[in-house]
Amino acid sequence: MTVNYSLETATAKWNLIFKLGLKWKGSIWKLVLWETLVWLICTLILMFTFHFAVVGHPIEKDFKRFADYVTRNDLKVAMAFILAFSSAYCFNRWIDMYGLLHWPDDVAHSFNATVNDSALPPAEMLKLRSCVARYLIFGYILLLRDVSVKIRKRFPTLEHLTHYGGIITGEEKELLDIGRIGPENPHYWIPFEWIVTVVKKYYIPEQKEGFITGKARKIKKKQSIMSEKHYTEFVTTLFKLRGHLGDILSFDWVPMPLALTQVMTLVIITCAITQMFQAVHNGFQLGNFFEFSSFVGLFYTTFQMMIYVGWVKSFQVIENPFGEDDDDFEVNQLIDRHWQSLIRLLLDPLSAPPEIPKKLLST
Amino acid sequence: MTVNYSLETATAKWNLIFKLGLKWKGSIWKLVLWETLVWLICTLILMFTFHFAVVGHPIEKDFKRFADYVTRNDLKVAMAFILAFSSAYCFNRWIDMYGLLHWPDDVAHSFNATVNDSALPPAEMLKLRSCVARYLIFGYILLLRDVSVKIRKRFPTLEHLTHYGGIITGEEKELLDIGRIGPENPHYWIPFEWIVTVVKKYYIPEQKEGFITGKARKIKKKQSIMSEKHYTEFVTTLFKLRGHLGDILSFDWVPMPLALTQVMTLVIITCAITQMFQAVHNGFQLGNFFEFSSFVGLFYTTFQMMIYVGWVKSFQVIENPFGEDDDDFEVNQLIDRHWQSLIRLLLDPLSAPPEIPKKLLST
Amino acid sequence: MTVNYSLETATAKWNLIFKLGLKWKGSIWKLVLWETLVWLICTLILMFTFHFAVVGHPIEKDFKRFADYVTRNDLKVAMAFILAFSSAYCFNRWIDMYGLLHWPDDVAHSFNATVNDSALPPAEMLKLRSCVARYLIFGYILLLRDVSVKIRKRFPTLEHLTHYGGIITGEEKELLDIGRIGPENPHYWIPFEWIVTVVKKYYIPEQKEGFITGKARKIKKKQSIMSEKHYTEFVTTLFKLRGHLGDILSFDWVPMPLALTQVMTLVIITCAITQMFQAVHNGFQLGNFFEFSSFVGLFYTTFQMMIYVGWVKSFQVIENPFGEDDDDFEVNQLIDRHWQSLIRLLLDPLSAPPEIPKKLLST
Amino acid sequence: MTVNYSLETATAKWNLIFKLGLKWKGSIWKLVLWETLVWLICTLILMFTFHFAVVGHPIEKDFKRFADYVTRNDLKVAMAFILAFSSAYCFNRWIDMYGLLHWPDDVAHSFNATVNDSALPPAEMLKLRSCVARYLIFGYILLLRDVSVKIRKRFPTLEHLTHYGGIITGEEKELLDIGRIGPENPHYWIPFEWIVTVVKKYYIPEQKEGFITGKARKIKKKQSIMSEKHYTEFVTTLFKLRGHLGDILSFDWVPMPLALTQVMTLVIITCAITQMFQAVHNGFQLGNFFEFSSFVGLFYTTFQMMIYVGWVKSFQVIENPFGEDDDDFEVNQLIDRHWQSLIRLLLDPLSAPPEIPKKLLST
Amino acid sequence: MTVNYSLETATAKWNLIFKLGLKWKGSIWKLVLWETLVWLICTLILMFTFHFAVVGHPIEKDFKRFADYVTRNDLKVAMAFILAFSSAYCFNRWIDMYGLLHWPDDVAHSFNATVNDSALPPAEMLKLRSCVARYLIFGYILLLRDVSVKIRKRFPTLEHLTHYGGIITGEEKELLDIGRIGPENPHYWIPFEWIVTVVKKYYIPEQKEGFITGKARKIKKKQSIMSEKHYTEFVTTLFKLRGHLGDILSFDWVPMPLALTQVMTLVIITCAITQMFQAVHNGFQLGNFFEFSSFVGLFYTTFQMMIYVGWVKSFQVIENPFGEDDDDFEVNQLIDRHWQSLIRLLLDPLSAPPEIPKKLLST
Repeated sequence: MTVNYSLETATAKWNLIFKLGLKWKGSIWKLVLWETLVWLICTLILMFTFHFAVVGHPIEKDFKRFADYVTRNDLKVAMAFILAFSSAYCFNRWIDMYGLLHWPDDVAHSFNATVNDSALPPAEMLKLRSCVARYLIFGYILLLRDVSVKIRKRFPTLEHLTHYGGIITGEEKELLDIGRIGPENPHYWIPFEWIVTVVKKYYIPEQKEGFITGKARKIKKKQSIMSEKHYTEFVTTLFKLRGHLGDILSFDWVPMPLALTQVMTLVIITCAITQMFQAVHNGFQLGNFFEFSSFVGLFYTTFQMMIYVGWVKSFQVIENPFGEDDDDFEVNQLIDRHWQSLIRLLLDPLSAPPEIPKKLLST
Repeated sequence: MTVNYSLETATAKWNLIFKLGLKWKGSIWKLVLWETLVWLICTLILMFTFHFAVVGHPIEKDFKRFADYVTRNDLKVAMAFILAFSSAYCFNRWIDMYGLLHWPDDVAHSFNATVNDSALPPAEMLKLRSCVARYLIFGYILLLRDVSVKIRKRFPTLEHLTHYGGIITGEEKELLDIGRIGPENPHYWIPFEWIVTVVKKYYIPEQKEGFITGKARKIKKKQSIMSEKHYTEFVTTLFKLRGHLGDILSFDWVPMPLALTQVMTLVIITCAITQMFQAVHNGFQLGNFFEFSSFVGLFYTTFQMMIYVGWVKSFQVIENPFGEDDDDFEVNQLIDRHWQSLIRLLLDPLSAPPEIPKKLLST
Repeated sequence: MTVNYSLETATAKWNLIFKLGLKWKGSIWKLVLWETLVWLICTLILMFTFHFAVVGHPIEKDFKRFADYVTRNDLKVAMAFILAFSSAYCFNRWIDMYGLLHWPDDVAHSFNATVNDSALPPAEMLKLRSCVARYLIFGYILLLRDVSVKIRKRFPTLEHLTHYGGIITGEEKELLDIGRIGPENPHYWIPFEWIVTVVKKYYIPEQKEGFITGKARKIKKKQSIMSEKHYTEFVTTLFKLRGHLGDILSFDWVPMPLALTQVMTLVIITCAITQMFQAVHNGFQLGNFFEFSSFVGLFYTTFQMMIYVGWVKSFQVIENPFGEDDDDFEVNQLIDRHWQSLIRLLLDPLSAPPEIPKKLLST
Repeated sequence: MTVNYSLETATAKWNLIFKLGLKWKGSIWKLVLWETLVWLICTLILMFTFHFAVVGHPIEKDFKRFADYVTRNDLKVAMAFILAFSSAYCFNRWIDMYGLLHWPDDVAHSFNATVNDSALPPAEMLKLRSCVARYLIFGYILLLRDVSVKIRKRFPTLEHLTHYGGIITGEEKELLDIGRIGPENPHYWIPFEWIVTVVKKYYIPEQKEGFITGKARKIKKKQSIMSEKHYTEFVTTLFKLRGHLGDILSFDWVPMPLALTQVMTLVIITCAITQMFQAVHNGFQLGNFFEFSSFVGLFYTTFQMMIYVGWVKSFQVIENPFGEDDDDFEVNQLIDRHWQSLIRLLLDPLSAPPEIPKKLLST
Repeated sequence: MTVNYSLETATAKWNLIFKLGLKWKGSIWKLVLWETLVWLICTLILMFTFHFAVVGHPIEKDFKRFADYVTRNDLKVAMAFILAFSSAYCFNRWIDMYGLLHWPDDVAHSFNATVNDSALPPAEMLKLRSCVARYLIFGYILLLRDVSVKIRKRFPTLEHLTHYGGIITGEEKELLDIGRIGPENPHYWIPFEWIVTVVKKYYIPEQKEGFITGKARKIKKKQSIMSEKHYTEFVTTLFKLRGHLGDILSFDWVPMPLALTQVMTLVIITCAITQMFQAVHNGFQLGNFFEFSSFVGLFYTTFQMMIYVGWVKSFQVIENPFGEDDDDFEVNQLIDRHWQSLIRLLLDPLSAPPEIPKKLLST
């Protein structure tokens, strides 16, 4: 997920900044390109306007005073605080969401460790295992469809899921539609409910002898696929995954308050305007308009502008990590990986290593 | 809950700031409208007063000195720190409270996974399930009545609850009144106590054979609705929900210390006065009062004022998320959703998918 | 606990600042009253001294230079950081301590859910329940006596506890004295030990049949009051409460390092002196001493002073939340509430709702 | 542990700052005494050098320019950030370490609650209990020897432990030496391993009847000292303590990166030099060297210096809380307390309160 | 791991800064050596260029204006915020990763505490124990090969592992290749799967008598190596280790967003250029270029530069703690230590202390 450059930063070398600086995908250059261009063009227009239309005009003194006023009263400290606060918030949110996007492998491992394979005939067991695998990935996709633009595009309707590796059958799709509470309520948890229902079908709660009549003792000769302790363990693992996925939805429902986002935007716009006037201010302060140094100053200010805008954009990108930005989670690959992994773990579980080697360890 | 704009921010596009900037509900424009107007009118009055009454008067020099003194000694750094600190506090509080507002679905899922449906005749089981569902939502509403203005308005007395979907009967309402410790103590936990009492009625703790006389062995032929392990699991899930709901009350009882809120208010007022004098200062510094530039400067200062006030308001709104602000939790919809969900999960549980499909998975 | 004003802040209205600003209990006005007065008097003395004794004297130039030096070299940035850091620390500590002050209700609920009421004759069971309730509140009070000034004043000796609702008998008081490790070590955990001892007396660990001889089978006909699983559950809940109460003591033993508190105090004093010289500086800068504007400037500086001191005081108040400040926890009411609640839950447990209503739910 | 002044801060009174300010142990005065003196002497030397050797010399202009340059380019903002960041880091580390220094009481309580005292003859049970107590405190001391200078001084070799209350015998000391992985690896966990080994010796895992032949049934008449559930509970509590103690070692191995500590030191030295030149700068700015005001300025600057250095020192002291600073943990008293407490809890457990009082509770 | 200097900081003495300042390994001197040199050379070139080529030239005024502009518009506040934010992020990441690098000792201890040694013949038990030990360290190494440059260099292919202490056999290597999902997917979890598979082979889930026919009762005379409770406990401990190791991979996949790293780099470069011009500015401001003071000023600025760059580098080093920097985790020693520890704990478990000493404790 996200643009990965861990390997490059493993050891801090001198050429690190060049290697990282020249990346394009997910880079600041790509992020602030248009904003910087727009700002630059506006500034140049303002500079030319000032040079050809204002200089010599009685309004020049007013202009200068205003530019001076703006320069003295900039919002840099408040901006630094607001940006620092917002970026910390976005980062924590991002890290938390990433941490909540649990892998279904846990549930598969737990199933393997707790199930009693000899309790069912192989064919039926395989069916049961296929159900657990399919419903797990189904719930996962249902959730991601609610939060991720990419997954919504990949599976616009549930019909598409029946074609993707046969994850669900038509009957199951209909059952899902019946089971929903309302059309606008999330329904990612229904397949998890199915898993419990299916497993419980083959699960026989233990009854101490004292409570079973002689008759019952004869009937109940079939084995439970899980013991009571193991069933609880498996259900707990499953509910934990469901809980974490639900928390992703919760995070998605409660973004940073709109007002704060707008405050941040206002601050950045104010800063851009202040910088613009500072550049022009600098331009005419440096004397002759067409001199070299006034453009060097402009270059320097543009650089500063890029830093401020780049900072804001770098956490706007991660504010909602389920979009299509370069740094957003690669949920498509994730789903494919989980599907393969569930098939491998649940339908084709590794048998034990051929035989425990006889030679002992030598240290 | 809250004003949601996640979809818009999924991918950071150039027109994001326009789309978000033009929203009204929950926006900074709505929040700071009146404060900004008041400030603007006061400033204009001060400017005109200064222009017509003070200029030329011997007091002018004093006025200018004072304005200058105020400008030099503003509290911007302290303000930035106090606001940053307070907003971080309010945000964490808000996120924590949101995280504590657990859904009762967990308990319903846990009940479904642990109950032994065959232990009771269907009619009695349905009654039991209805009790669990009703008491769950009842406890939820009792808690929210204590913290949320909206819910208190919706259900001013417990009488209203007996009419809302028959959540409680008259007898239960009386029982609740008896069970309270004191009129001013919260009583949201009483329905949770009922759930345990009702479930325990049908629960038979396991006894190893050695402790039961031959007679007991014959009597106790009826099955327990939950095994010991499952009963513990269910009660733990239930108590976890109760604990989290109780923590919401705790949060509600311990707001940010009043003194700090007042410090914050003082800071903002000081800042507003400073800005006001700065604007006037700027007005007479720019020379002729009626010139264009002095109003541009005023416009710029108003903008700054909006940013400061907007920042404060944006977290004052979320300081108590159970009020009626645009960004507050939509607890009414939440309760309706939980009620529907509990009915669906507990009274109308989904049967297993019709039959496990025969065709195996193809990847 | 603390001064609660949640209801007022539920919805952010325009008159919020007036309603909150005019409160007295726990307010900044009450907190900084004396400090501000002292500062104001000192400043006035300095101003008059300067005006009558220094102006015209050769020392005047030196005085002005010093005032100027102090103004230029103030510690505002460092102060902002130190205060922000310290206040964050105090707040977290306060919130954490509040979170650790668990209610004994959890243990009572757990007891009700796990105990097998039919295992003991009603009278004996009532005795047992009374013991659990009394020892719980006793441990709670013992702990609070170690940290809270209020509770220490209410129960100066253990004798007072025997009179308060008969929480402990004389024998138990003696037993407690015997059980202490040393006079200076906390002993809040001893009643918790008693609870385990008392419950264990009626608890019979399960023995699988294979380990019990035929004779034992006959003897052990009495039932255990809790099954093994339930006993573990109850003891875990009890130990969790004990652990959290112990953490309160830990917090109490490790305050903010003294040196840091002193640094903070130094910073505030430095700031007060700087502000004082700034005010005087301002006074003589504004020209004639008796002019109106010099007093307006003084008013403005006093305002600033109040903000700084108010900020410091507002978290000094909560540094130790077990004192007698307005914002400290209301531990007395808490104990009364717990005692009532334990009696209600353990000695007078609610029976199940009269009968499960017949009419089903209508949505 | 640490210098405690909680009682004084319980209620924020006006004389609080005097009471706290005059403490010596662990105070800022003690911490910064030498640093301040050194700085003061250097500054005085520089001042005199300047006055007698530089004034009038052509180098004077250069000196002034440099002092001016230094004053304009100080690092105060960067310093504030670096110090704030480092102090937050040190504080969190300190609090976390304190939280990890769990008390062995938990394990002792758990042992008392889970053990079946009637399973062993009293003498053997007492032996077992003594082993658990001795090994617990032994592991605790072994760990603290690895991190704490004080404990290492108190018990330089393991021989000393055999004399301290007979914690270990000679045989056990030899066994420990055998069990170590390498001489430089910590071995605090070995006594914890012993506890499990010793307890397991008397623990008989439960076997359901179906798996035991008739013969086994006769042999296994002795009782297990803990049931399976209780054994797991006890071992979990024990391993939790071991895990927390191990985390203390982990913390000890990963201090703040050296480079950062050095950056902090550089910053402070730079600040000290800047302040020194500022003081001299101030000295000659105030005109005549021997005038009163130049020394008042020096006094003010020294005050500032103390604040900066005091801030740094106040968290350097707590960076490693296992040293011999005034504010470091009092591990010696802690060990004595734990030893007494373990003996009391495990070897002399409190019997139940004499008899459950007959009179019921009166509220 | 990392450069340890805990012992030196245990007690804050006066010579601490010298002892720490003169370290080379992992020190700031080593980190910023080249950067500082490059900066210094560039600055000197610029200074000489200015002195010999620019002074006297009409461009001099422009140059001065630009240098002045740069000095006035530096980014120090923004830089301080961005660096503080990034360093806090890197530190938390570093501490979290360190905390996740759990030791496999937990699993070994858990195995020892839960296994029933008498259930298998000693030779077979030893084989089983060797498998658990080998697979544990194998999974550990597989994970570290994915994140650590050092381990990847030590074990470039899996072949190398078969030579290192016989950790895996050839058959197991082949089995691993079969078990992988895809060549680019991590496969550290496969050995953990093997452990479960191997242990489950000897684990017999408990079946209550009622469910076993008479025949089964006779066949199943062999004992399970773990009881149900213990098996669950062991598997939970194992899965917890697997989960934590997986989280390390997750951390590795999600570095700080590239754009933010680039923003940070831009800020530092801007700062370096600003400082460079300030130094030159200072050089010609101080008058004669070859005077002593201009070089003292340069020295001071270089010092400042080192502090800024040192701060950045000190957390760039720890951004990815699995590289080859001085402060990175010493994973090689860690693996060797774990291998020895697992052999000692699992293959050569300590027997109980020879005999429980007879003499009782004397306090």
